[in-house]
Amino acid sequence: MKFVPKHTNYIQKVRESFERQEFMKLIGATLIDVQPGYCEIQIPYQESLTQQHGFFHAGVISTIADNTAGYAGFSLMEESSSVLTVEFKINLMAPANGELLIGKSNVIKHGRTLTICKSDIFIVNNGKEKLCAVSQLTLIELKNSSDKKQHQ
Amino acid sequence: MKFVPKHTNYIQKVRESFERQEFMKLIGATLIDVQPGYCEIQIPYQESLTQQHGFFHAGVISTIADNTAGYAGFSLMEESSSVLTVEFKINLMAPANGELLIGKSNVIKHGRTLTICKSDIFIVNNGKEKLCAVSQLTLIELKNSSDKKQHQ
Amino acid sequence: MKFVPKHTNYIQKVRESFERQEFMKLIGATLIDVQPGYCEIQIPYQESLTQQHGFFHAGVISTIADNTAGYAGFSLMEESSSVLTVEFKINLMAPANGELLIGKSNVIKHGRTLTICKSDIFIVNNGKEKLCAVSQLTLIELKNSSDKKQHQ
Amino acid sequence: MKFVPKHTNYIQKVRESFERQEFMKLIGATLIDVQPGYCEIQIPYQESLTQQHGFFHAGVISTIADNTAGYAGFSLMEESSSVLTVEFKINLMAPANGELLIGKSNVIKHGRTLTICKSDIFIVNNGKEKLCAVSQLTLIELKNSSDKKQHQ
Repeated sequence: MKFVPKHTNYIQKVRESFERQEFMKLIGATLIDVQPGYCEIQIPYQESLTQQHGFFHAGVISTIADNTAGYAGFSLMEESSSVLTVEFKINLMAPANGELLIGKSNVIKHGRTLTICKSDIFIVNNGKEKLCAVSQLTLIELKNSSDKKQHQ
Repeated sequence: MKFVPKHTNYIQKVRESFERQEFMKLIGATLIDVQPGYCEIQIPYQESLTQQHGFFHAGVISTIADNTAGYAGFSLMEESSSVLTVEFKINLMAPANGELLIGKSNVIKHGRTLTICKSDIFIVNNGKEKLCAVSQLTLIELKNSSDKKQHQ
Repeated sequence: MKFVPKHTNYIQKVRESFERQEFMKLIGATLIDVQPGYCEIQIPYQESLTQQHGFFHAGVISTIADNTAGYAGFSLMEESSSVLTVEFKINLMAPANGELLIGKSNVIKHGRTLTICKSDIFIVNNGKEKLCAVSQLTLIELKNSSDKKQHQ
Repeated sequence: MKFVPKHTNYIQKVRESFERQEFMKLIGATLIDVQPGYCEIQIPYQESLTQQHGFFHAGVISTIADNTAGYAGFSLMEESSSVLTVEFKINLMAPANGELLIGKSNVIKHGRTLTICKSDIFIVNNGKEKLCAVSQLTLIELKNSSDKKQHQ
């Protein structure tokens, strides 16, 4: 699918939003690629990200599934819009046992209010990439809504 | 629903598994309660856990939804079993804007191989608790499988 | 949860929409109860509704999960609105082996645009009711949109 | 993905199971194609399959999403096995307004116990095919279990 962004500023807008997410720093996530309707994020292995077996925690895998989708969708939205995840579903198909986690998400349908994405999560073990999780997500575009920090 | 655990050691088993999850330390999660088919986990607010608006990140909310369910189910499994999340679906219904995140999960169906759970996630803002996410999850019991770290 | 309908006509509006669904007639579904944020539908066993083992087909179970939620949500919407299901997830927990299928759905969150519901599906076998499926659903309210047939 | 079936009888096995599903006759579904890890089913428009706007009912769309996945997975299982859907999630992305509904499903991961599939549902309107729903599903293989009718 080919998508046309609604403004030329979409990459910078995604990058700035990603920078504002403190949780991305905590888990060592890097925004690798942004294209219209597409996003890739990577997270190198750290012991602090593991579950009981020593593999990447399902929570980290879910985080990357959600965030790649959010920014894949965000890239297509109005410049003055904000994005929220409405819901998602994820299948964890194989243990995320390896040195690098890669999330890639594509927009499937970009509607006026809702955007549907699919995220594929890969684990790289000794340089070999393997699909370890698949996810299907629904985003909502909040028109004329700031993407910046809100005072609590 | 009332569940009868298969061994007397189920609380200790859950606690030890939780301790082995390095990711729980990173996000400051505390195991609050374990009962047969039930688990509660809490995560106090830290700036490092936030998304772009300064609220708890959806990835943190998903993590607590997954982990409470995993341990609610684990409490009912054989002493020699390990648990994995097969899949889950989560609806993020309200911004997680507050000082404390609380996850509570109940087992809905405990089968021989698969266990189905529901997790409710609450945000506490100025002492007032509000349901902010609901999740439905499928776990698999791995018989005669160690819950401990596996060398990579 | 207690919900207040936005107009007094909500029961009639749900009944008329249900009547317009030809698929409900085909599968022999009856609208049993409508309350603000709640709906119940029943489907008696017919051989024509079965899967390979002779039990209610998962498609019939999904239909009732979807429709009870749709009308639970519809009962709370504006009189001039129409409703569509955005997405749903369902766990089929036990074979639907019995003489009657009962779907009951409750609204969990009624928002301005989106409404989140949970549906529980019960199978009645020799008069004994058993939970056989649980579902979590997202609806969208289409403002100023007709609920009636649209010419193709 | 290329899959190798475990026995040569897989197409016949799927066809016979499909024939035993009375619900497929009721909704006028035809099994179009079976390949290792793949299945296609079609349902022509009938007024009896519609929701309130006169389009294919979400329940029919869910049925085809579920059944194509079930048989895509079943094609890879042991000859003596039976298959059940554990759970699925579906996004209804566009009104299914047209003369033919087409479901196509591919196995994403075929494990020893669980099989994960994705189903795409297309609506054909005046000969033009459009993606109207996407689904992600989990199946379980029941070893040494009959796929035939069980006396109630």
